[in-house]
Amino acid sequence: MKALPFMDVTINDSFWSPRQTTNSEKTIPHELEQCKTTGRINNFAKAAGLMEGNFEGIFFNDSDVHKLVEAASYTLQTHPNPAWETELDEVIDAIAKSQQADGYLNSYFTLVEPEKRWQNLGMMHELYCAGHLFEAGVAHYQATGKEKLLNVACKFADLIDNTFGYGKRDGLPGHQGIELALVKLARATGETRYMSLAEYFVTKRGHRPSVFEKELENPDLPGGLGAYKHHYTRDNKFEGTYSQAHLPIQEQTECVGHAVRAMYLYAGAADIAAETGDSGITNALDALWDNVGKRLYITGGVGPSGHNEGFTQDYELPNFSAYAETCASIGLIFWAHRMFLLKGESKYIDVLETALYNGALSGISLDGKDFFYQNPLASRGGRHRHAWFGCACCPPNIARLLGSLGQYIYAQSENDLWINLYVAGTASATVAGNVPLKITQETEYPWLGDVKITVSPEKTSKFAINLRIPDWCNHFDVHINGETYNATSGTNGYLSIDRQWKPNETVELSLDMPVERIYAHPNVRDNLGRSALRRGPLVYCFEDVDNPDGAFETLSLVDDAAVEAIYDSDLLGGITFLRGTGTVYNVADWENSLYLQRPRPNRLEYTAVPYYAWCNRGAGQMAVWVF
Amino acid sequence: MKALPFMDVTINDSFWSPRQTTNSEKTIPHELEQCKTTGRINNFAKAAGLMEGNFEGIFFNDSDVHKLVEAASYTLQTHPNPAWETELDEVIDAIAKSQQADGYLNSYFTLVEPEKRWQNLGMMHELYCAGHLFEAGVAHYQATGKEKLLNVACKFADLIDNTFGYGKRDGLPGHQGIELALVKLARATGETRYMSLAEYFVTKRGHRPSVFEKELENPDLPGGLGAYKHHYTRDNKFEGTYSQAHLPIQEQTECVGHAVRAMYLYAGAADIAAETGDSGITNALDALWDNVGKRLYITGGVGPSGHNEGFTQDYELPNFSAYAETCASIGLIFWAHRMFLLKGESKYIDVLETALYNGALSGISLDGKDFFYQNPLASRGGRHRHAWFGCACCPPNIARLLGSLGQYIYAQSENDLWINLYVAGTASATVAGNVPLKITQETEYPWLGDVKITVSPEKTSKFAINLRIPDWCNHFDVHINGETYNATSGTNGYLSIDRQWKPNETVELSLDMPVERIYAHPNVRDNLGRSALRRGPLVYCFEDVDNPDGAFETLSLVDDAAVEAIYDSDLLGGITFLRGTGTVYNVADWENSLYLQRPRPNRLEYTAVPYYAWCNRGAGQMAVWVF
Repeated sequence: MKALPFMDVTINDSFWSPRQTTNSEKTIPHELEQCKTTGRINNFAKAAGLMEGNFEGIFFNDSDVHKLVEAASYTLQTHPNPAWETELDEVIDAIAKSQQADGYLNSYFTLVEPEKRWQNLGMMHELYCAGHLFEAGVAHYQATGKEKLLNVACKFADLIDNTFGYGKRDGLPGHQGIELALVKLARATGETRYMSLAEYFVTKRGHRPSVFEKELENPDLPGGLGAYKHHYTRDNKFEGTYSQAHLPIQEQTECVGHAVRAMYLYAGAADIAAETGDSGITNALDALWDNVGKRLYITGGVGPSGHNEGFTQDYELPNFSAYAETCASIGLIFWAHRMFLLKGESKYIDVLETALYNGALSGISLDGKDFFYQNPLASRGGRHRHAWFGCACCPPNIARLLGSLGQYIYAQSENDLWINLYVAGTASATVAGNVPLKITQETEYPWLGDVKITVSPEKTSKFAINLRIPDWCNHFDVHINGETYNATSGTNGYLSIDRQWKPNETVELSLDMPVERIYAHPNVRDNLGRSALRRGPLVYCFEDVDNPDGAFETLSLVDDAAVEAIYDSDLLGGITFLRGTGTVYNVADWENSLYLQRPRPNRLEYTAVPYYAWCNRGAGQMAVWVF
Repeated sequence: MKALPFMDVTINDSFWSPRQTTNSEKTIPHELEQCKTTGRINNFAKAAGLMEGNFEGIFFNDSDVHKLVEAASYTLQTHPNPAWETELDEVIDAIAKSQQADGYLNSYFTLVEPEKRWQNLGMMHELYCAGHLFEAGVAHYQATGKEKLLNVACKFADLIDNTFGYGKRDGLPGHQGIELALVKLARATGETRYMSLAEYFVTKRGHRPSVFEKELENPDLPGGLGAYKHHYTRDNKFEGTYSQAHLPIQEQTECVGHAVRAMYLYAGAADIAAETGDSGITNALDALWDNVGKRLYITGGVGPSGHNEGFTQDYELPNFSAYAETCASIGLIFWAHRMFLLKGESKYIDVLETALYNGALSGISLDGKDFFYQNPLASRGGRHRHAWFGCACCPPNIARLLGSLGQYIYAQSENDLWINLYVAGTASATVAGNVPLKITQETEYPWLGDVKITVSPEKTSKFAINLRIPDWCNHFDVHINGETYNATSGTNGYLSIDRQWKPNETVELSLDMPVERIYAHPNVRDNLGRSALRRGPLVYCFEDVDNPDGAFETLSLVDDAAVEAIYDSDLLGGITFLRGTGTVYNVADWENSLYLQRPRPNRLEYTAVPYYAWCNRGAGQMAVWVF
């Protein structure tokens, strides 16, 4: 099973198209400007000898530029923008020129410590930055057909492949990402060495003694031993969980350590499992998937702790202090997508959709120019969006996610088509062996659950259209060409409509989308007694700007009270908000007493808005889980 | 206003008398045995030269024996017990013989570091131990008329008075307690120097530079500087809040630091304010009282943090981790009692009663031989009672509280009588100038709110009987000699019945005692969405032994469902338990999912038992605050 690539999908959707437009018109220029003013782009020019000066910023800043080039490349295909196309070419040119004669490309090491390449793989992120370069090269090639950056990527990949591997140097990325990038590069170029190198990085990890243990013994480690020991030792002994280097991938069963690293590793491992059929990896990924199901915010956020930017233990999901990095939700989308491609089950897309519409999308403001690094599920007012970060991984990550959204909507096997996301637009696929298919979706999803799908094979053919029935949907019906179709949710969460399809037939899918109160497992102690509101794929939250009352944290939903879902085109860029009845305490009831027999809560007509849209009207109090 | 002393009050009460009997028959012999086997009593014998050997245990262990002697002394009066009376005399003898020629008495310093007396006042507790000796001396004298231990106390007090004070050495107790003890000693002996010394210790505290700052500069400090710095410095600078030495008492407005130290200081300060009329101290105590009202568990526990065994900030009252030391609740009783005597308001007795029936009484098991040091308001099953502790301050403290209970029931002024606690028994007072009064209470309090009071002045006299109307009581009525009395709660929370009283008249007070759901101030974040059950003075809790269900922590009380209060003479020594309807989640509903649309909670007939009685049937889960 393969995803339909972004080039074969055109989005024309009332929810997502404005976001892709904003991505092109606001986010990408804003981030280019940030990368310029912070010296990130100049670092390449300096490394290329095109300008004078020292390296500026953090040693892994190259990766932000690579991700931005990747985002812009997708966007060239979908929403080209002359305002930055020339600049993109200049950036790519600087990157290319910064490549050293042997293929090495990393502006920090080239400018600062050229003799210390590959000496601190655990912390200095050369392989991580390389991976983002590869993804950029592939995206630019796919979007434009231009091979310039792809060739740069391949030249660097060749160097890495010549450097690391069995019979060569022992090497692993301290921050994963290069694995899935090498898979992309292998598929784009047909070069199997890149796939083998990806497999090496995935399967070598966790074997002892690891390269990280060896690096720990280097007193002259570039970057120093302090941070390294902090992350890679406990009680002065090597401890690999922070970067998932504690066990071979086949033996891992628990999501541990830095969440973005984990997601990128698991995504790369799923690629490798799909490529090699390694059942050991697949079984481990199954176990890890089960485990992340106990460590997942309702928003699709993962990694609750700021301490390790990552995982802690099952059911530990604090709301106020939730780290839930934007990049981790994006990484979860990568992993979930690959798990679906590996196994063909819709449960992975359920998680993908949740993260996409909630915990990842919350990472960017409606105007496309402010970002969350952390995505808490509750705030007492101290959380603000920021235009940029010193460690700026998240802003270009959300930009590339939005730019590449098309690739997550459909998948195809040799004969059949899967529709995973309901996003209006068109796509081109091949079904029934070799029959070209044009498929069109018309929908107001996620605000409405009705989707009209036009299925148009070039000629009448027998194949299956597999419609994902989201896990949030308890009832749906289907009409084909206006007639009721006896639909039951089929295998693996899909309604499979396997028939002779003629050109231009219609499928009308109606997913019931009531407002639901969701209750967390009782082991999630922070949510005991609480529930959250969800409608369709969207998790809702309460902001004090809509619910101006002194006792915001005491909001209690009135049981069984009808909740209305109301579309308002003027609110937060156009949303369906929820209105219902709740109560809040009247703090004045307590006067000077600490304990009270009979508080008289005030009734409140509450308003809830989609979680992704929070903190777009100033930083206020917010809660997802209320009483 | 003065309290009727314990000698003038006879308790004959179905709730308290069995506890005083247990105190005499079980607790005191058990604690004597513990004090013997741990070397605490032998330390005195060794210091007296009666036996060979080294000091055993912690340097402040003398205080445990003093408190136990105090407890036994009260009990000699109320529940004498030949099983330990001889032993008590032997202990007193050993203590007396350990007194040094100059009056000094502390077995640790005498045996271990005789040349280092008074050098580490901040941490080594010599003055604290002295205070407990004074209280023991006074109690033994009051109970028996024997002056032996009182004389020992006075001789030591004289030494301390000759050593510390204006124009003498600068000195303060690191752990307070001696202040209120000196007041007792002064009142028992008429020696005003002791009162002045108490005033010195109360009012000198917090003035800079303090003796603690000077001691911090002593490199040869007995006990060492490590613990001292931990408690008395922050960022290498003196920081006095741990022992309330940060500000002069008149400037203190916030309850800070170690909770037992704070309670003992405030109690002593209230004594001094009553004695001297110092309005600066009274105003400070008013502010501190208001402040403790924001830092008080519903059980009357104070000091939520184990880190400093004390206070943190307003409204920070975590349930599972509540420290709420038994001694701190007892100290709160001391303070509250003295605030009542100072100001004549029932609000202080409301807190006293709450602490007495809940957070202090929970400190001892029903069989009188196991103890809590900490009194959490929720447990996941890991909390156990213990027969003794290395630092054993709490067991003898609860024993002396129970032994001296009589003194908290009544108070009198020159003309009038106050009834503060409803406890069956008799008392002798003097009213209307000099008329002897016998007063009798008959009641099943706290299980029932009916109290029959027989008022019997030796001759018909005009005076007021002031009946406390507890804050938990929303409605009551009164009959005098069988006829309805038009009762309204009067000044300061008392119903004052000011009339000509003839011998043998009866007052029947009926306090409505329904089950109430109590809601904490919304700023108490741990109790958001929760409520607790209270009936009369008793706070209730839920134990899993009564409510055996897998989802104990999800217990939710059904609104407006009738709650029955049922007396069961076989349960937990005879209690009124509460039975009502609640729901608990069925964890199986979630199966492998983390989030669920429609859990189907199980209905549960719940049983709640008085908080004081928890953990008497094994260590299980417990909660006071439920949904």
